[in-house]
Amino acid sequence: MRICRVSVDDELHYGVIEGEAVALLSSHPFGPFEPEGRVLQLADVRLVAPVLPSKIIAVGRNYAEHAREMGNEVPVAPMIFLKPNTSVIGPGEPILLPWQSELVEHEAELAIVIGRLCRDVPEERVPEVILGFTCANDVTARDLQRTDGQWGRAKGFDSFCPIGPWIETSVDLDDADITCLVNGDVRQAGSTGDMVHDVTSLVSWISSVMTLLPGDVILTGTPAGVGPLVAGDEVSVSIDGIGTLTNPVIDRV
Amino acid sequence: MRICRVSVDDELHYGVIEGEAVALLSSHPFGPFEPEGRVLQLADVRLVAPVLPSKIIAVGRNYAEHAREMGNEVPVAPMIFLKPNTSVIGPGEPILLPWQSELVEHEAELAIVIGRLCRDVPEERVPEVILGFTCANDVTARDLQRTDGQWGRAKGFDSFCPIGPWIETSVDLDDADITCLVNGDVRQAGSTGDMVHDVTSLVSWISSVMTLLPGDVILTGTPAGVGPLVAGDEVSVSIDGIGTLTNPVIDRV
Repeated sequence: MRICRVSVDDELHYGVIEGEAVALLSSHPFGPFEPEGRVLQLADVRLVAPVLPSKIIAVGRNYAEHAREMGNEVPVAPMIFLKPNTSVIGPGEPILLPWQSELVEHEAELAIVIGRLCRDVPEERVPEVILGFTCANDVTARDLQRTDGQWGRAKGFDSFCPIGPWIETSVDLDDADITCLVNGDVRQAGSTGDMVHDVTSLVSWISSVMTLLPGDVILTGTPAGVGPLVAGDEVSVSIDGIGTLTNPVIDRV
Repeated sequence: MRICRVSVDDELHYGVIEGEAVALLSSHPFGPFEPEGRVLQLADVRLVAPVLPSKIIAVGRNYAEHAREMGNEVPVAPMIFLKPNTSVIGPGEPILLPWQSELVEHEAELAIVIGRLCRDVPEERVPEVILGFTCANDVTARDLQRTDGQWGRAKGFDSFCPIGPWIETSVDLDDADITCLVNGDVRQAGSTGDMVHDVTSLVSWISSVMTLLPGDVILTGTPAGVGPLVAGDEVSVSIDGIGTLTNPVIDRV
């Protein structure tokens, strides 16, 4: 099932996508939900970020080849950091290049969307707490990441967390292609099967540190091939079985 | 003015403290507000965390002497990281020592509470966007902080961000004493006047990175003297002109 969030007459609604149609829901999808009755054409609605998370937990260096390209070791335990939810944008919304950085880069990532409040989740129960998956771009000011030590600034700018286009509740992630295109050129091409810590172990591990809430998002790390974004670019993150998240890049004014 | 949040008959209310009384408010304090009529005795209510922030931005190494005790340089730009709002607890609630760490430490800090949505705030307008100030304890698993690289885990455990006891809207922070006591013994004794980046410059600088929302909290760094907490301890953070935040320490079970 594909769960989306759409803007209709300036109001946000959750919906379920069926083919080219969107059936609006009477409530949010983090509990029992049902169609409210209205069915719109996908082409006629504007998709927004499929969720506004209370927190975004991101995992660093979770693909060995990317760790190597950055000159880093793969950490034994997952290396986690947080992005602010003010950095979230949806499909089609612009990534804003801030004046503070001269090198902003894309990082295509698989995002996990948590479905229910949970803590200390054993691995065998992880599927129960996941609502689904979406595409994400962990946009990073690489120069500030190198100089700051902690990554709160380099990865925390407004617009630095595009997510979407929707939440896919059922997808095979054993070996799903994850791709990043800039202006149609392939920059990153990896497989979710190459993650050092997989979805199940990440959710279990993170939930042993902090309580997860419905709508919380976990970014699972990026494969090799990260590179610069400049004003005028169009960047797309695609994951097999989920879809494609595309964002233009402009200077923040 | 002292703005608090209290639990009355299992419902949360904002209130204003006047002497030993609490006048409940008819709304939240992030806009025009007025008393709803009920006045309770401070001794009869349970104070909870004065705000549940959408995000908590913390500043590392913002007191030179603390940076030195940790063997670090003072960074030129503020070094920021985020704590999850699931780490927030209020006065009297227990700090839970997680099994993952063998060295959990206190860090007494001044916390800024943002009053309104803002971005790119010039220094001269910073007072307009601050609701007030409270005490905070940036509880840190020091062993994990040293090994993890990024601090999302070491500073992100549930209960690792006590804040309170209330929000003081008017306080002179030019040289306010900030003190941390463990079981009555002074562990940290500094002055807000020793911050490398002061309140005004921090709010302006952070707002140039990310949009701040009403209730967001900025932790401004800790003075020298950080040290361990063990089960059975009672830790207090006091700031002149604000008050004292006290929390017991227990093992997480």
